[in-house]
Amino acid sequence: MTTSRNETRRAQVVGTGLIGASVGLALRGAGWFVTGSDNDPERQRAALERRALDAVGLDIDAEIAFVATPLASVEPVVSSLLGGAGARSRLVVTDVAGVKGPLAAAIGDPRFVGGHPMAGSEQSGVEGADASLFVGATWVLTPTEHTDPESFARVRSVVASFGAEVMALSAEEHDALVAVVSHVPHLTAAALMNLAERTSDEHAALLRLAAGGFRDMTRVAAGHPGIWPDVCVENSSAIVATLDSLIKEIGDLRERVSSQDREGLLEVLGSAAAARRSLPIGAGAPDELVEVRVPVPDKPGVIAEVTTLAGDLGVNIFDLEIAHSAEGDKGVMLLVVNSKDAQRLSRALGERDYTCTLGQIG
Amino acid sequence: MTTSRNETRRAQVVGTGLIGASVGLALRGAGWFVTGSDNDPERQRAALERRALDAVGLDIDAEIAFVATPLASVEPVVSSLLGGAGARSRLVVTDVAGVKGPLAAAIGDPRFVGGHPMAGSEQSGVEGADASLFVGATWVLTPTEHTDPESFARVRSVVASFGAEVMALSAEEHDALVAVVSHVPHLTAAALMNLAERTSDEHAALLRLAAGGFRDMTRVAAGHPGIWPDVCVENSSAIVATLDSLIKEIGDLRERVSSQDREGLLEVLGSAAAARRSLPIGAGAPDELVEVRVPVPDKPGVIAEVTTLAGDLGVNIFDLEIAHSAEGDKGVMLLVVNSKDAQRLSRALGERDYTCTLGQIG
Repeated sequence: MTTSRNETRRAQVVGTGLIGASVGLALRGAGWFVTGSDNDPERQRAALERRALDAVGLDIDAEIAFVATPLASVEPVVSSLLGGAGARSRLVVTDVAGVKGPLAAAIGDPRFVGGHPMAGSEQSGVEGADASLFVGATWVLTPTEHTDPESFARVRSVVASFGAEVMALSAEEHDALVAVVSHVPHLTAAALMNLAERTSDEHAALLRLAAGGFRDMTRVAAGHPGIWPDVCVENSSAIVATLDSLIKEIGDLRERVSSQDREGLLEVLGSAAAARRSLPIGAGAPDELVEVRVPVPDKPGVIAEVTTLAGDLGVNIFDLEIAHSAEGDKGVMLLVVNSKDAQRLSRALGERDYTCTLGQIG
Repeated sequence: MTTSRNETRRAQVVGTGLIGASVGLALRGAGWFVTGSDNDPERQRAALERRALDAVGLDIDAEIAFVATPLASVEPVVSSLLGGAGARSRLVVTDVAGVKGPLAAAIGDPRFVGGHPMAGSEQSGVEGADASLFVGATWVLTPTEHTDPESFARVRSVVASFGAEVMALSAEEHDALVAVVSHVPHLTAAALMNLAERTSDEHAALLRLAAGGFRDMTRVAAGHPGIWPDVCVENSSAIVATLDSLIKEIGDLRERVSSQDREGLLEVLGSAAAARRSLPIGAGAPDELVEVRVPVPDKPGVIAEVTTLAGDLGVNIFDLEIAHSAEGDKGVMLLVVNSKDAQRLSRALGERDYTCTLGQIG
């Protein structure tokens, strides 16, 4: 898709809470004309006042729509936007919901690309909105066998322009992984907080002893609880499986404490300390970018296979372009990745019968 | 105890890691002459270089000693300091260890007052030391039936001069409560980190999805693991009981997720959010200070009973003084507390047959 230099790009944002309004601010910062709406007139007005939107309503000329409504209403909103788009519309639609599997299963439209920015804040609502919320954050996209490559490339390019690092994962893998790094930690923070609160009913001193570590561990539990029942229900199987693993992990620690197994405790806590210290902070600045050229058949499912394979390997896609051949049934996918990841990605693609060539950039 | 204006007060610090060196800096900032030592010559030299100490060695004229060694060596060091103090020594000894029960049981000397500053840092060692580490932090003291009131009052007064808020608790209650707000959260952070690390062995993308919430929840797990086996062993019964409660709490959440109990989830997460938001930040500045005068028999155990009763109620003691009557077998304890706490404390003391009178300050 090309846009003439003089044409202002137009975007739609539905739902102007913390994430929706931040998307609006980021889009406007990048020069887009942003039209938006929210079921709550108060929140809609606040978004306009905070200049997260240029206008309120529905823009039939928008080329991208971000759906940032509560989880339960994402599917009908996405369907309505796509259903309402005219024959000449170039609209692609993405969302920001925290669970992706049910949406991927429900929406087979090639112009829909599921997404989830791994960014947030204890704040909620327009007041906490910030154009820089996504800078350095990982933004997961979840292409499916139905996803149109051009739609994927457009969504990828727009969210990358917010400063986010884009990673493609299958919806199922996304859901399994966020259960581990987000949903179960959140539930655990709530469990710790409720346990402390109950103890403090009998021991008023308790909460006075809560120092920085306890505060850090329970901070996420202060967030608005309203979104969580939906998240837990939509992702229940992954969450239950992860909670079972956590209960087992804590049970093992309990046995080590109970049996006064100093060596075992040191080992478990030492592993955790090493892992925590080496937790990556974003993808980091790339040492050197390399272009991976992948000739691909021009058929659905290829974009999902190639990009989610990169995601599975933890490989960040810094740029992505699709070049079509003259014949029309073949194309070349150009993936720009960090040089240290290029060989790994190329080998993994080779195992799936893609033949890649690597090239320096520029 | 009185000190002439011109006399420099002298203190001893044994163990010059993060906490010991911070105590040294805080003491020196308050004008004390600080002599210190550490088993590790390197750490001892670093403490001197960082000016956490005035001198290296043992000061037989010190009036207070802080023992900030690893948990396992606190008891022998305290005993050695008290045993070595001459007949005319005014020495009182305190410590900073994170578990208090076994020490309270092992050391019956009236000049020992167990302590635990609820302050720390992911940093360790002299490099992280800071005189302001204790400002606003809760510093628990654990007087026992043996504790001499004057020794308690002196330790209280010195740590309060660091900006800490002093709370007295029985050693048993301290240990039960820190299991809830410190030890079990630490083990849980390690469990979450290890679970994520194991998952990431198969799913390289996982740790890239770890956003702020996960980082907050696992931060404490990055700390040096070396101190934890001792803490877990010394406080094993409270930790095991708390881990059992946590496992039950997480198990309940698992059932709610599994049965898709939206209302139940909203209730549990809502309670946690409300509790986390109302978590007190320190004792706060007092509205108005009130003096609670408590006539007490001049016998061991009274200081522990009165002060730990205040602690049980979550009452901060801003000042404490003991006035002896001329007869010698009676005295008056003067406790300065926040006016909103005074009635509560007075009533609780009344139930234990102490007769209090309240008075305005100044």
